Amino acid sequence: MISRTVYENIRKEVLEYFSKCNIKLTKEEKEKIEVADFGLNRIRELGLQLIEYINTDRVCAKDLVLLPGQTCPEHLHPPVGDSPGKEETFRCRYGTVYLYVSGPAVENPKTTVPDDKKETFTVWNEIVLNPGEQYTIFPNTLHWFQAGSEGAVVSEFSTKSTDENDIFTDPDIERLPIVE
Amino acid sequence: MISRTVYENIRKEVLEYFSKCNIKLTKEEKEKIEVADFGLNRIRELGLQLIEYINTDRVCAKDLVLLPGQTCPEHLHPPVGDSPGKEETFRCRYGTVYLYVSGPAVENPKTTVPDDKKETFTVWNEIVLNPGEQYTIFPNTLHWFQAGSEGAVVSEFSTKSTDENDIFTDPDIERLPIVE
Ligand SMILES: [Zn+2]
Ligand SMILES: [Zn+2]
Repeated sequence: MISRTVYENIRKEVLEYFSKCNIKLTKEEKEKIEVADFGLNRIRELGLQLIEYINTDRVCAKDLVLLPGQTCPEHLHPPVGDSPGKEETFRCRYGTVYLYVSGPAVENPKTTVPDDKKETFTVWNEIVLNPGEQYTIFPNTLHWFQAGSEGAVVSEFSTKSTDENDIFTDPDIERLPIVE
Repeated sequence: MISRTVYENIRKEVLEYFSKCNIKLTKEEKEKIEVADFGLNRIRELGLQLIEYINTDRVCAKDLVLLPGQTCPEHLHPPVGDSPGKEETFRCRYGTVYLYVSGPAVENPKTTVPDDKKETFTVWNEIVLNPGEQYTIFPNTLHWFQAGSEGAVVSEFSTKSTDENDIFTDPDIERLPIVE
């Protein structure tokens, strides 16, 4: 649950990231920045901010903002009905993003995760994305990501988003945001 | 057909637009900017420049650059095999884009097209996109677009691109670029 005050503070920080990147939003879009704390109530550690530009039956595009050191928790996009599941390309626009996917674990990861949540991060194949670099995650692949010390802005190009179908490793997580 | 010299000049102009917009490209991407003259050999009037970030079976994302007053000729994306055809969202990042789609013709269009090509522009339902504004074009819809006097940078979020299937109104057009 995010209080209105926390939401407003973070929304303002997000708009500063967008303006640093020269990403123009309409007035209506500025009002509907999403702030997701995944129901964990520790947004600056575990959370994600975004603006969704389009989400039709076939195509979705968003720009994501991560605060310094903020982590989007581990999850995957399973097949849903006739769809093989969501496919996502993350393209770094600003800052550095440390992305972790299934595969050989890195020996010395460049990030740390909260001690009490360590067991909810199970994939440690590390991909480092700097501005202009990108990576595509196919359906049914566990992944999580964390921003470096400057925060990060990341474009996401994907098939349809259906957040309610995402499967998180942490059983405490509720994806759909609740603002009080 | 585009000569190497024309290609290099336009590539440099395109990179300036991207840097004005704070859009970061990798070194490899900077080398593979596409310059499409549609086989008409009048690139600054009728043409389009772009960088393709991703084009899988399901998702495609590009950033387009239009030079001042440059027009992307009228075309549509027909159904292909099992696919209903390409769906495109254009989001203006810089400059102004005048987009024309099927529907009621505007009385006084904000653009003009080359006199000798007038009959190849048949749809005149005008949509004006300024930075942060966007429009979605569903398959099988005729469309064309022109940049204002500052040029334009436009993000395109779409389903898979298969340029060879695009249908242009102008019978003189060849979509696949030829650089000599
Ligand atoms: Zn994901
Ligand atoms: Zn098109």
